Amino acid sequence: MIKIGIVGGTGYTGVELLRLLAQHPDAELTAITSRGEAGMAVSDMFPSLRGHVDLKFEDPAKANLAACDVVFFATPNGIAMQQAPALLAAGVRVIDLAADFRIRDVAEWERWYGMQHACPDWVAKAVYGLPELNRDTIRGAQLVANPGCYPTAVQLGLMPLLESGAVETGHLIADAKSGVSGAGRKAETHILFSEAGDNFKAYGVAGHRHLPEIRQGLTSMASKPVGLTFVPHLTPLIRGIHATLYARIEREIDFQALFEERYASECFVDVLPAKSHPETRSVRASNMCRIAVHRPQGGDTLVVLSVIDNLVKGAAGQAVQNMNIMFDRDEKTGLWQLPVLP
Amino acid sequence: MIKIGIVGGTGYTGVELLRLLAQHPDAELTAITSRGEAGMAVSDMFPSLRGHVDLKFEDPAKANLAACDVVFFATPNGIAMQQAPALLAAGVRVIDLAADFRIRDVAEWERWYGMQHACPDWVAKAVYGLPELNRDTIRGAQLVANPGCYPTAVQLGLMPLLESGAVETGHLIADAKSGVSGAGRKAETHILFSEAGDNFKAYGVAGHRHLPEIRQGLTSMASKPVGLTFVPHLTPLIRGIHATLYARIEREIDFQALFEERYASECFVDVLPAKSHPETRSVRASNMCRIAVHRPQGGDTLVVLSVIDNLVKGAAGQAVQNMNIMFDRDEKTGLWQLPVLP
Amino acid sequence: MIKIGIVGGTGYTGVELLRLLAQHPDAELTAITSRGEAGMAVSDMFPSLRGHVDLKFEDPAKANLAACDVVFFATPNGIAMQQAPALLAAGVRVIDLAADFRIRDVAEWERWYGMQHACPDWVAKAVYGLPELNRDTIRGAQLVANPGCYPTAVQLGLMPLLESGAVETGHLIADAKSGVSGAGRKAETHILFSEAGDNFKAYGVAGHRHLPEIRQGLTSMASKPVGLTFVPHLTPLIRGIHATLYARIEREIDFQALFEERYASECFVDVLPAKSHPETRSVRASNMCRIAVHRPQGGDTLVVLSVIDNLVKGAAGQAVQNMNIMFDRDEKTGLWQLPVLP
Amino acid sequence: MIKIGIVGGTGYTGVELLRLLAQHPDAELTAITSRGEAGMAVSDMFPSLRGHVDLKFEDPAKANLAACDVVFFATPNGIAMQQAPALLAAGVRVIDLAADFRIRDVAEWERWYGMQHACPDWVAKAVYGLPELNRDTIRGAQLVANPGCYPTAVQLGLMPLLESGAVETGHLIADAKSGVSGAGRKAETHILFSEAGDNFKAYGVAGHRHLPEIRQGLTSMASKPVGLTFVPHLTPLIRGIHATLYARIEREIDFQALFEERYASECFVDVLPAKSHPETRSVRASNMCRIAVHRPQGGDTLVVLSVIDNLVKGAAGQAVQNMNIMFDRDEKTGLWQLPVLP
Repeated sequence: MIKIGIVGGTGYTGVELLRLLAQHPDAELTAITSRGEAGMAVSDMFPSLRGHVDLKFEDPAKANLAACDVVFFATPNGIAMQQAPALLAAGVRVIDLAADFRIRDVAEWERWYGMQHACPDWVAKAVYGLPELNRDTIRGAQLVANPGCYPTAVQLGLMPLLESGAVETGHLIADAKSGVSGAGRKAETHILFSEAGDNFKAYGVAGHRHLPEIRQGLTSMASKPVGLTFVPHLTPLIRGIHATLYARIEREIDFQALFEERYASECFVDVLPAKSHPETRSVRASNMCRIAVHRPQGGDTLVVLSVIDNLVKGAAGQAVQNMNIMFDRDEKTGLWQLPVLP
Repeated sequence: MIKIGIVGGTGYTGVELLRLLAQHPDAELTAITSRGEAGMAVSDMFPSLRGHVDLKFEDPAKANLAACDVVFFATPNGIAMQQAPALLAAGVRVIDLAADFRIRDVAEWERWYGMQHACPDWVAKAVYGLPELNRDTIRGAQLVANPGCYPTAVQLGLMPLLESGAVETGHLIADAKSGVSGAGRKAETHILFSEAGDNFKAYGVAGHRHLPEIRQGLTSMASKPVGLTFVPHLTPLIRGIHATLYARIEREIDFQALFEERYASECFVDVLPAKSHPETRSVRASNMCRIAVHRPQGGDTLVVLSVIDNLVKGAAGQAVQNMNIMFDRDEKTGLWQLPVLP
Repeated sequence: MIKIGIVGGTGYTGVELLRLLAQHPDAELTAITSRGEAGMAVSDMFPSLRGHVDLKFEDPAKANLAACDVVFFATPNGIAMQQAPALLAAGVRVIDLAADFRIRDVAEWERWYGMQHACPDWVAKAVYGLPELNRDTIRGAQLVANPGCYPTAVQLGLMPLLESGAVETGHLIADAKSGVSGAGRKAETHILFSEAGDNFKAYGVAGHRHLPEIRQGLTSMASKPVGLTFVPHLTPLIRGIHATLYARIEREIDFQALFEERYASECFVDVLPAKSHPETRSVRASNMCRIAVHRPQGGDTLVVLSVIDNLVKGAAGQAVQNMNIMFDRDEKTGLWQLPVLP
Repeated sequence: MIKIGIVGGTGYTGVELLRLLAQHPDAELTAITSRGEAGMAVSDMFPSLRGHVDLKFEDPAKANLAACDVVFFATPNGIAMQQAPALLAAGVRVIDLAADFRIRDVAEWERWYGMQHACPDWVAKAVYGLPELNRDTIRGAQLVANPGCYPTAVQLGLMPLLESGAVETGHLIADAKSGVSGAGRKAETHILFSEAGDNFKAYGVAGHRHLPEIRQGLTSMASKPVGLTFVPHLTPLIRGIHATLYARIEREIDFQALFEERYASECFVDVLPAKSHPETRSVRASNMCRIAVHRPQGGDTLVVLSVIDNLVKGAAGQAVQNMNIMFDRDEKTGLWQLPVLP
């Protein structure tokens, strides 16, 4: 059994981790911390877990996280970089679901996140946890930076194209739409039901924190700098990201075959038949990413559609997938839940 | 392995059966029929099942259902009574998710459902598949009438009260609210997104088909005729039923303890602590029923709150639970999915 | 022109008042206050008002509210009782959309609202602003206590029955469902989109602040104390209240005719034909209340269905209706907006 | 008074026309037709109109439409081209809300709409009813082709750019998201609440009927052929279109000023301050279009955000605006409804 700790379990990525790990045959949940809710039974906050999770939230200062094999940080940005180093020093493996270790350029990270980084050395040692890109280095990693939700959907949708060198890379466009749970479980006005319901809007057009993360990944795939316009939107659904990606063709190849071959052995990426339109609900509550490739009217603009559940493949599910890789389990262990439709 | 056939798999109870059975360790899906979609791959209609269900819809006339151990009817009312008798005669066990065998009084059934019953003799032999009430007779049943969604939520909410004899039974009130998936996957105007969304209404106040089914069950629990006012409402959520039940106290007992004791050994009924307010999402996509008992201002009116997922405990999940009982499996087999929250 | 001030215009009742008053031919918006947003243009907070409302939020201490003919308080409970007396003393008329002056029994108010009342004398002088009940006294009132949203829907639904003396009054039941905007525009976790969306729950079953307000009104209509069980529910729509009301018949009369006659001359109460099921969207964004009366299976339990838009007839619209009465305008002035459907 | 007929009033554009025209001071609704619902009172189908619309649906063969000053066709594609010519010959003016007269190239229309055109001569005489583009020709038109919903949002968002000649026109991208009411009030499975709710998807990527309409308009604005990739999406809200538009800069100008000047005298186009993110609800139930212009990170890709209510500015409201222009009324007559927020 893998002994597991969770730091910060009161948000959506936290409760989703609990849902997945409570059903994982090799996971032993040993501690979960929350400064604000110490002493409260987890299932009092989340009655959906009654009978399946018996833990209480513990004060972070008192929890014996160092006895865990792996600790997940499901905390706001800026916490893991403070607390992870001590655990790492004690030999614990760490998976950070926040952004602290995702951007290799520390100065750029500090610019986008508006704080000074507390442990730049661990940034250099962290592995970016996108299994379809970095499976082998994840296996031996002590610290995994779990990708953001938009970055997962966008990178999986563009990876085959960039690796192939068949598209122009100077003016990529990612028009992405997210369900509201992506904004977290914070009490903020703009994500109230009566604000975000029956409403649609773009946000962060001037610059969203996932932009440098995506650009870093695309640059690596293309082996050269890429230009990217990234426009995120808030859409009135709870779970789901839909990325609509645009790229101009530079060299003719069979793009459907390109995607099918690239992901042939991936268990969590499903390339749909040509002309398909993946729906977010086709992956709801599951760790799948589904992708379709279009070339409207046979022109020179490719349109790639990529959907994930932002809380699963875009957060907690991918974190468990990374844990399975790190601890030599079958990658699908505990992640066989079929999508919930309707 | 239990060899399984499904008649009519293109509706919501059908796809939910597929989701659950595809993950059931003892289930072998062998045939699924649909007159309209014969030849189509199930996963082409429901991409959420890609990679997990390889069946094609078969013409009902050609499918070898008689070779199955059990056949589920996920059909509109009036189909199972036509097609089940031949299978039953061949020794196949049948679980009907429609209403054909739920009402023991055939004349009353014909009045509410507006058709003549095709096999009244099988009505007499059918077992009403509410495990918490009829577990022992379900075990040996050849034909199980799976309860309706409202009847499941209402009966589980009132059962302890009626069995106790502590409440007045002449004027029970069940004010029930259902998600839109309860109306099925038929192309009808009133359940369009733009009609049912951002909207709330009662319907069928003059008389809903689930009324006689509920009344029959309550009468049996109370061992005397009961009076019931049942008002269903359509609420803009996909899955979920919330029943708010009102009964006047005739005899003082500890009602919280009554419920806790009645359901102490039930794995799919969870009695919440006093003063709780169960949410439909706390059971979303799971087979649980959660119940809370209130006595506002210490008066003589009890208020019981009961929530289920109409497609799981209110349909497909309860059907699988019945199958587990009929085939001597642990009742929870294949039904361990934790609720999806948020 | 009626010179109008609004105290506290950043919540939903505030912005709804602005929407209605900006279109009111006799209304001159002269000041709107907000402590937190002083200096901000109203249309910067609510772009829907761009080009129609040119005011800026003013500091309450600096706004010249005493120069207004009428001041609306769209504030949290407990503010109007502090600030209204000075305005009233200066001869300004006041309409309070909060609860400060609704309950005549000050001790009971203090018990339910958990604070000491600042001006009990004005409670005695205030008129409860339900025009269908108190039109004549509203006309001359200096201070109007605008009814709550649930109380409006429930009282209009039960008024004819209680005035008739034809129903039992000891055990009335009001099962009410509200859209999420009824909870206001406060940043609170439980009304986030990802919490309240695709979810249904009861709340406040042990006791909701609208209970004493409703009971006071019903008692007055029945001319004797009434017993009421009131269960509010949160439903995933933005606007709308649906009250399902249950009463036992004590004396036979024509209940459909009773309702039609009682409301024959009311412009904002629409009694639907027998067997109708009013939808919340049939009154969305309008000041109408629609009511249908049912007697299921000809039994002795009446079911009354009553729908309003909680922000209009349940708050801002009714406040404007009261203003029209107070200032001798046609009651419909500025309130002719047709419901928005779909 | 303008005597008005409506052909086909049972869909969403029909009921929205009724909502607007019932409040229009110069409109006299004289006839409304529906083959399927002849004899039914309009307010029985749409209770939101009770007390405001007293018409009954008439059989199209019997209604005296020739006595009207103007007839609106709110019918499926292919009806107006059959029925309008007789009315036009009788001197009646016609506004077609469907697509029959929008595309000037009849062969291309026939290819996209899959039928033979019944009156190509009237296509040549029809005026495309986008007031911001064709106000002067609309004034004298006998037949107005009311623009589609996507085409309205996209063309208003790109018009200043194309007229300026400052952007590359070969590879424009329009990533558009529509509420479900845009798909009409037809009983179809894919727009059921349980299918379209809590779900997001693209559709028609290979080619949507609004593509040639948009391309025709953009070509006219640019005075040269344009290349356009148009990807529509279905989003779980009832009303609203959000178009996210991408264009590469070819020549440096002040784009914010360009938009502000182009629309300075337009009463229904509102250019927001720089860095704004218009929300669909900021125009809900109103005839406004709101637009914001962005240039992320100062790069060479412009992002224009354009929102409308698809049933108002995208259909019925624009039709009334056209009627006002055709009959020399103030363009805003009957269209002053403020957006409904929340």
